[in-house]
Amino acid sequence: MSQYDVLCIGNAIVDILAECDDAFLVEHGIIKGAMNLVDAERSALLYSHMGPAIEASGGCAGNTAAGVASFGGTAAFFGKVSNDKLGDIYRHDIRAQGVAFDTKPLAGNPPTATSMIFVTPDGERSMNTYLGACIELGPEDVEADKAAAAKVTYFEGYLWDPPRAKEAIRLTAQHAHAAGREVSMTLSDPFCVDRYRSEFLDLMRSKTVDIVFANESEVKSLYQTSSFETALDLIRKDCKLAAVTRSEKGSVVVSSSETAAVPAIEIERLVDTTGAGDLYAAGFLFGYTNGRSLTDCARLGSLAAGLCIQQIGPRPRQNLREEAQRAGLL
Amino acid sequence: MSQYDVLCIGNAIVDILAECDDAFLVEHGIIKGAMNLVDAERSALLYSHMGPAIEASGGCAGNTAAGVASFGGTAAFFGKVSNDKLGDIYRHDIRAQGVAFDTKPLAGNPPTATSMIFVTPDGERSMNTYLGACIELGPEDVEADKAAAAKVTYFEGYLWDPPRAKEAIRLTAQHAHAAGREVSMTLSDPFCVDRYRSEFLDLMRSKTVDIVFANESEVKSLYQTSSFETALDLIRKDCKLAAVTRSEKGSVVVSSSETAAVPAIEIERLVDTTGAGDLYAAGFLFGYTNGRSLTDCARLGSLAAGLCIQQIGPRPRQNLREEAQRAGLL
Repeated sequence: MSQYDVLCIGNAIVDILAECDDAFLVEHGIIKGAMNLVDAERSALLYSHMGPAIEASGGCAGNTAAGVASFGGTAAFFGKVSNDKLGDIYRHDIRAQGVAFDTKPLAGNPPTATSMIFVTPDGERSMNTYLGACIELGPEDVEADKAAAAKVTYFEGYLWDPPRAKEAIRLTAQHAHAAGREVSMTLSDPFCVDRYRSEFLDLMRSKTVDIVFANESEVKSLYQTSSFETALDLIRKDCKLAAVTRSEKGSVVVSSSETAAVPAIEIERLVDTTGAGDLYAAGFLFGYTNGRSLTDCARLGSLAAGLCIQQIGPRPRQNLREEAQRAGLL
Repeated sequence: MSQYDVLCIGNAIVDILAECDDAFLVEHGIIKGAMNLVDAERSALLYSHMGPAIEASGGCAGNTAAGVASFGGTAAFFGKVSNDKLGDIYRHDIRAQGVAFDTKPLAGNPPTATSMIFVTPDGERSMNTYLGACIELGPEDVEADKAAAAKVTYFEGYLWDPPRAKEAIRLTAQHAHAAGREVSMTLSDPFCVDRYRSEFLDLMRSKTVDIVFANESEVKSLYQTSSFETALDLIRKDCKLAAVTRSEKGSVVVSSSETAAVPAIEIERLVDTTGAGDLYAAGFLFGYTNGRSLTDCARLGSLAAGLCIQQIGPRPRQNLREEAQRAGLL
């Protein structure tokens, strides 16, 4: 019997969220809707220009792990914080959600990673991530027992940015596949795809990765096409299963033989898209590791993403299991 | 010409907010709706039992300063943080709101104060405050120029908890009154009133304090009466002006010759009462220092408090000036 439904691996980041207008993004050279990597100096500069903010634990794969646990699934997480106050906060929040998190914190510098997230009036989030302690995640952080005990391992494409995380991923994937488990990834961001396109395609074609999560921009970037249909036909051949989100148009799940399209849930007010894709993956993977149909998996993903974008911050406050029961999905 | 509308003095606290049910409060011996003072050990214990949280700069008087600035008023703040990450966050947030904040941070321990705030499904908040660096605020932190340059100085009754802050208050009040300014305070909390009743009454009767903010429980506690009318009659004689909030019943402002009652604004959904009283004071003091009638002051207070309680955290995200214009109050 599996000990975990999902093992997530990603950059362990504390989000610093504030609102701004579009002119602010232009003035400060921030690419809207993207994850902009920044060094310590630029991070400090942007913070000095940022309005009053709130802090919340984030990081894509961490958000997904928290989401799986909120659905009542069992989740574990690998990610590197430092031995500092924000590291304590990060550890508290993910453990308090019920996620197993035992990666050894870095003793000293660099500090725990932060992402300054600017939310514009349209709800779009533009991230400015200082990787900090995340650059030290490496194969020595792989807990073989958890990799073997998780039905699905899920990691973020962003892990190709720090230097040695990819070694941790390859090692985890070996443990997982040796135990007959599956491995999944998110393409993370169209610019991230642009940085690592051939490596991501190789992960899929070498069957290191079985299941791929992406949004429309990312899958188009992966295949360098402006046609969504073309991209969908191509990804169907490159992996066992792909779940592609399309914002208000819902999501499409494809395998070699199946296609399932699910609409987005109706929302009252779009507040902040931070974490939407991560929560979609949480709902999908919770459903997938609990034997639900692809359509139900996508519906659970849509529900979690829809709740996420109606509040500030990347992890919905609601208990997702109760919300799914209320929506008749569980 | 005054440089500042309002100078606020208070404990500089970073809030750590999470939701819980009422049983949690009972189980952990937390007095519901109150500010429970905790030491470092109990703070760590409660944190280990707290669910996933978010962090936001708080502290009553700091929230009021931020609110005055959000209305477009000029505000300054005295309060003690430590030279640590949460201290950086506190300084950032209050300065980013446009508040002048130059209190020298403490070098080293104790760390910046935190308050673990548990929000129950009824929206009530129960605070568990570890005063940390706040215990070091003293008369050496009084900036005489700011005290003399602010139309109104506002401080929190909570400052009677740390050992030397009351000396800072008395010194500030001397500077303020010497410059022909006014001094105001909030009674903060019914249990705080219980701890310092005679001292608070002495502050009012000695005319150290001209204007008093309180809620219904606090003013009843001050005069040890169960009759709101009795308490109101008594406070009217003890200070120049008193503004008493009554939650959904609105607020009543009394001077020796005037009484103004204003209803609460209609809200869609009560989410979290954290900061409601602080924001009422912000609206009131912004109006008061800008020559508005007592009724208008109370209306501005109600607006700010009403916006505050419809979101998580103590400082509303909206620009209060724009909201007041939209409501026809400015």
